[in-house]
Order: sequence, then structure tokens, then C-alpha cells
Amino acid sequence: MQLTDTIAAISTAPGTGAIALLRLSGPQAETVARAICDGLPDELRERFAHRCDFRDAEGRIDDGLLTFFRGPRSYTGDDIAELAVHGSPYIQQRLMEALLAVGARLALPGEFTQRAFLNRKLDLSQAEAVADLIASQSAAQHRLAMQQLRGGFGQRIEELRQQLIDFAALIELELDFGEEDVEFAKRPELLALVDRITAVCDRLIESFRYGNAVKQGVPVAIVGAPNSGKSTLLNALLEEDRAIVSDIPGTTRDTVEEAITIGGVLFRFIDTAGIRRTDDTVERLGIERSYKKATEAAIVVLLGDASVMNEQAFGLEARMLRERIGDGPTLIPVLNKADLAPKALSGTLAISAKKGEGLDALKQRFLELVNSTATQGDIVVTNARHVDALTKARQALLDARAAIEQGISGELLAVDLRRAQYHLGEITGRITPDDLLGSIFGRFCIGK
Amino acid sequence: MQLTDTIAAISTAPGTGAIALLRLSGPQAETVARAICDGLPDELRERFAHRCDFRDAEGRIDDGLLTFFRGPRSYTGDDIAELAVHGSPYIQQRLMEALLAVGARLALPGEFTQRAFLNRKLDLSQAEAVADLIASQSAAQHRLAMQQLRGGFGQRIEELRQQLIDFAALIELELDFGEEDVEFAKRPELLALVDRITAVCDRLIESFRYGNAVKQGVPVAIVGAPNSGKSTLLNALLEEDRAIVSDIPGTTRDTVEEAITIGGVLFRFIDTAGIRRTDDTVERLGIERSYKKATEAAIVVLLGDASVMNEQAFGLEARMLRERIGDGPTLIPVLNKADLAPKALSGTLAISAKKGEGLDALKQRFLELVNSTATQGDIVVTNARHVDALTKARQALLDARAAIEQGISGELLAVDLRRAQYHLGEITGRITPDDLLGSIFGRFCIGK
Repeated sequence: MQLTDTIAAISTAPGTGAIALLRLSGPQAETVARAICDGLPDELRERFAHRCDFRDAEGRIDDGLLTFFRGPRSYTGDDIAELAVHGSPYIQQRLMEALLAVGARLALPGEFTQRAFLNRKLDLSQAEAVADLIASQSAAQHRLAMQQLRGGFGQRIEELRQQLIDFAALIELELDFGEEDVEFAKRPELLALVDRITAVCDRLIESFRYGNAVKQGVPVAIVGAPNSGKSTLLNALLEEDRAIVSDIPGTTRDTVEEAITIGGVLFRFIDTAGIRRTDDTVERLGIERSYKKATEAAIVVLLGDASVMNEQAFGLEARMLRERIGDGPTLIPVLNKADLAPKALSGTLAISAKKGEGLDALKQRFLELVNSTATQGDIVVTNARHVDALTKARQALLDARAAIEQGISGELLAVDLRRAQYHLGEITGRITPDDLLGSIFGRFCIGK
Repeated sequence: MQLTDTIAAISTAPGTGAIALLRLSGPQAETVARAICDGLPDELRERFAHRCDFRDAEGRIDDGLLTFFRGPRSYTGDDIAELAVHGSPYIQQRLMEALLAVGARLALPGEFTQRAFLNRKLDLSQAEAVADLIASQSAAQHRLAMQQLRGGFGQRIEELRQQLIDFAALIELELDFGEEDVEFAKRPELLALVDRITAVCDRLIESFRYGNAVKQGVPVAIVGAPNSGKSTLLNALLEEDRAIVSDIPGTTRDTVEEAITIGGVLFRFIDTAGIRRTDDTVERLGIERSYKKATEAAIVVLLGDASVMNEQAFGLEARMLRERIGDGPTLIPVLNKADLAPKALSGTLAISAKKGEGLDALKQRFLELVNSTATQGDIVVTNARHVDALTKARQALLDARAAIEQGISGELLAVDLRRAQYHLGEITGRITPDDLLGSIFGRFCIGK
């Protein structure tokens, strides 16, 4: 972690475009830029797009624009030079090499944002939100990332941590008085504070169920007997939203079939093998896998064939499925081929995947389920690291509560409070081991 | 072709990056930008990166930078607003939709550059060079595009055309005098001018051989008997330059095997079936195709197996190949497996594709051949449209020459000269039918 060298990266998406941007950040940003630039004035105007020629030892590379941001009034807090050129991969590459040749160093993934964090332009949860924002694929992902970037979450955590610190200071003061039996930190007040913070942690941890679903995509397994129309349903759902079908990067293709956004929320539809009684060993393995996938899903659509299914049989099937998948997933019983059915069954959604009937109602159910778990308008945690820290902080607070109730000595209570402070501090990066920073920023794209 | 509306496009490469740029150009650029921007000052500073929030009816989309370029001091010559945001495809798309919702129109491919041309910021050959520059994959392509963008070519053509116009004006003047036998335009001087311009056309047309090779890649066919090591040679050539192996877009995969840059020049290596005497009909068809590909190549490498080939036999093979492929391609006889051969043969390059020996010398030969056809330091034509116009102008000049020599009347001479002017004018866009413009700029990427 060096803040004294000057980093460089291609900051726009890889490939050919009309324009590409390269960025330099660090104390030598201006010097490095000038070393490959012709036509700049003696004094650069801040945030002003200067027309200039970029060159290397071989000759002119391109003409373009150079914009200089003087630290700390820049993204990273350091001096930044932004080079805009024609978006040819050849030009981008050659310009990058020219920058490296005159003293810049290739930026690591996320290193620009890491510098912004180290220069206190962003707290750690905001820095993480930048990566989430760039990766966002749906309106809901985008909204949560923007919320987190705005800093409300980090600020809330920091306030709670500060209150703990204030109380802990009083307790440390008691310890200074050693043998004397003084109590600067009122125990009932401390108890109330600990409970309040614990409740906040609970709510935030709970919000991760929604936050994670939004960020990763809500897993929906479609299960049912062979020929109940699972593929037709999947295709019908995808068909209507073909324009926004997307793969989720980083997920394995063999478990995730397709992902689409519905009402701004990303849903991942999970393929399962048809379920039926069978003696075939291979097929039974497939069916076991279907149950497993359904158990891990947030929503399970049980699909039946309305043309052959009666209410009793379908109810039995639903109960058997529930037994296998446990209480986790929400089960939606759906009868397909409703257009061929003699009559509707109560308590089930009737659709015709083939004719596209009832699909809107089904999608509406998906959305309702997701939104009912959302803590509306409030802070939503989307980051597993934050949940981990909150969970540890919560445990420390529960320990502190027990210590207070049992009248345990100030020393031990202080340790619990310090643990809680530490884990809350991890979220905003007030307390952060270097290797953690590496793993956080290593997930960014280059140039950010 | 409307210059009164305001166009918008995502100008950076598609996909996810740290930063993405969107551009607006047109009289409403500022109005449109302000309609989706919060936090801008009442008066925008030119070329200054203003920090602001972008939003649509749904809410905030992102914070970012807005830079405003007041026409005519902009790329297009019109007002331009440049919006820099986080490079999430979702944000790019949503911001684009927001711009369209408040009055911008989606730009056609190349429309920004087309406006620059229509506003006389660039001549047509320079505008075409912008597309070439962005598409450039090798140092040589890049150099030629930069040269053309700098405007020397268009300027030279415009000078010649102007001289023709001056002379033609004198001839038109003669026509005004009708019956009187006056000669304002001295015929010997005109003849000298016509010859001079014809010579320039000849040189420029000739330069296209090099220019086109550099732009499209120099086609090299490797032919030889089965088992002479053609694939090994191809792989060996690719192996060393794996990092810069690239496909050429727009070429068919089944004739082009691989393209690599050597010494900054792009070469396309063309696969051919092994050549030998055979009665098998299918195999003979393949061999015919090999000959055809070799005939169309710029360079043909005849590969022999040094371990089984003597001087006489290889010489015979070379003569037979030459007969089949004609005088067009340059033939390079190469003996492979030199490490297994008893002695070297004179007049042939000895290599061992397997051991990587002699490959540098072979590549050097490729480069020499390309560079020997280059008119060093001079203008090189890379554009088939330009060659076509030059060829037509040249024909008109030859017709004019014949007319002068045969003492044909001023009317007909004037027609020939006007034809020559017209075709020269096509190159710089002084004379350009609208549909031609459409086809030129339609090949650009969106956002440029």
C-alpha cells in the first residue's frame, strides 16, 4: 500500500469505442501526463479539458483531451489526470505503455477507490458500494448501491460505534479508580444502549435476506412432475423479457439456467429435473438434486398439470414437497395448462405457460414476496462482509448484556464493548487489517 | 440529415468499466443535459468538469461529471455535453433513456463525426480516417490513419482540384466568347497540369496496394506438399506472437486462419490444403482451392521438406506453382526441417519450424516485401472509395489529354475537366451525394 507512487489504468470498458479514458492518480500525475503530452499550457487549469497530443518515443499516438483534478478535490483525493483518446484498443494499449514508460505504475483492481478510502474521501462501506454500483444489473441493485454510496449506512454504524465508545470511556475511567467502587457509567443506561444497538444489528442482519437476494438475484426453483410444463414456463418467462435476459457473472452455468429482471428485481431461475416415482438410479439422483436446489431457493414454484391433476393430489404433492425442502423457501403452487382444465382449483394460481396466460399474476407474486421481506425505505445490507461484522458485533453486545446483568467486573465488560466497537468499525473501515483491504478492492474492476 | 436536433450516444466501449461517457451534440445539448442534471451552476463553464447528480423521473441515477463544449469549439462544431458516470451497463442504459425522454435523439453510427464534417471541422477523408483510427489494430494501420486524419491527403487533393478549377474557368471563359477563336487557357500549360495531376493520381492509386495491405492485413498463403510442415510453421509464427494474435472482423473464418502483427504490420495467414498429384476428386478440389487462395495472396510461401527435397525438384515445384498463380503474388521458397537436411540449397530460405530456427529471417522477408511497395514518407491511400474516385478522375484526365492533343472543342474539354474535378471533390467531400455520406458514416461505431 503505497500512496507515493502514481497509478495508471484504462478506466473505460475494454474493447473498441468512440472514446476511451485513461486515468493517472498520485503525486506525479501531472509530471507523468506532461511527459507524454504536447501542447499543454504551462499552468494547467483545474478540471478543464485541455486539447493536446499524446506521444511516445515512436511518435504521435493520438490527439485528445487532458483534464486535471488537483487533490484533494478529486475522486481519489490525490492529483488525477484524465486522458481522453479515440477508443481504439491499439491506441489505449500504446498510451498505457507510454504512461508506464515515464514512471506510472499499472493500477491494481479497485486501487483508485482504495486511495479514495485511504484519503478518507469515502468510508469502506461506501467504497464497496462503488463496486456494487458498477456491477448493478437491475433497478433494485442500483437503488441499494446508491443508498449505500450516499453513506447513510456507514454514518449510522459510525454513530452507534461512537455511542459505545463514549460509554466505554466511562467504564475505562471507573477502572482507573481501581479499588474504589465508583460507577460513572450508569448500568441501566448502558443496558438500554446495548439493547438499542443490538436491535439495530438485528434489523440490519435481517435486511440482508432482501439485500442479498437483490444483489445476487432471487433464486426461484421450478419443480414438478415430468411434462408439467417447466421448460415452457421458463421459456415463457424469458420470452417476454428477452431484452433483459442476462447471465450472472461468477455463478456456475450448470446450476443457474437464466436470470431476468422483473419489476427491477433480478430473479435467477433454477432448472430442476422432473420429479416422479422411479426405480431408475440415475433418474433418482437427478430428482434428489432437484430437491436440493429447491431447498436452497428462496422461492419454489411447484408446477402441476391442471388437465390431469385434482385438488387432493396436488395438495398431497405440495405437502410432500414441503417436507423435503423444509420451511426456508416460499412455496407457490401453480397449475399449468389451465386452458385445458375442466375447472380451477382453489388456493392455486392457474396459468397457461403456452398461451402466456396468468404469467403477470405469477410475476406479481414473485415481486410481492421479495418486497414483503424488504424493510421499506430503510437501510438494507447487501454485503456478506457487513453481515459477518454485524453478527460478531451483536454477539459481543449480547455478551456485554449478560455481563451487566450478572454484575461482572468493569474489565470484562470493557472487553466486550471493545469487541463490539471493533466489529462495527470494520464495516466503515475505521478498523481494517491490510489483507482485508486487499481482498475487498481486489474484486473491483481495473481503473476504478 | 438534420442539424437542428440533438443527438445522444454512449461513447465508450460497451460493457462494464470504471467510467462510461455519454455525449450529447446539438443546439439543445445544454437544455437536455440540464433537464436530467441537479447541482449545476446557472452558467456552465466551457470545457470544465462540473460535479453533478443525474436523475430521471424515478430518482437519482448516479453522480458524475458534466463537461460542456460550446460550439464551434467542439468536436462536432455544435454544442456538446459530455456526461461521465460509473461504468455500469445499467446506469448507462438508464441515463441514455433519460436523455431520450427529455428530447435527445439516439445518434446514428458515426453521426457525431458526420456533423463535424457537415460543420466543416473535418474534410471527408479526415472523417473516414477517424473510423480507421478507431479500428486500427497495428502500428502501421495506426500510422496511416493518423497521417490521413492530419489532413495532408485531403489538402493535396483539394489543391489539385483547385488548379483544375482555375484552368477550367479560363476554358469556360473561352466558351463565353462563342464564335471568336480566343484561347485564354494555354493548351501546353493545361497539358502539363493534366499530366502532373495524372501522375499524382497514378502514384496515389499505386500506394493503395500498400495502404490496403496494411489496412486489411497482408494476405500470406502457405502452400506445399502434405507433411512439409505448413501447420507447424503457422503455429510457430503464431506461437511467438500469441499475445497479439487477433481475428480480423468482417473476414470469413473459413478462408482466414489467423492474423498477427509483425513489426507493426498486420499479416493474414491463409490456410491451404497440401498439394500433391492425386486422382481423388475431392482432394483435387481442395488443391484447386489452394491454388486459388495463393493466386489472391500478396505473398506465397512455398514450403518444401528439406530432408527429402533436392534443388532441382524444389526449383521445378516453384516454377509449377508460379505458372498456376500468375505474376501477382511474391513467391518465397522456404525449405523446412533444415535441421534434418544434409545441406542447404541456394536461393531458398532454410528454416526449422519445429525448432523455431530461421523464423526471424522469414518474418524479415515479409516486412521487406511490404515496405518495398510503400511510398516512404509520402501519402498512402488506404480507402477503396478514394482509389475509385482517383481512378475515375485519372480517366477523365486522360480523356482531357486526348481532347487537347486532338484539338477538340473547348466544350468537350470542359466536360472532361469537370468530371475530373467532380471525382477529386468526392474524396474530400466537396461534392458528395447524401446516400454516399450515409454509407460512409454508417460504418462507424455508435457514439463517434
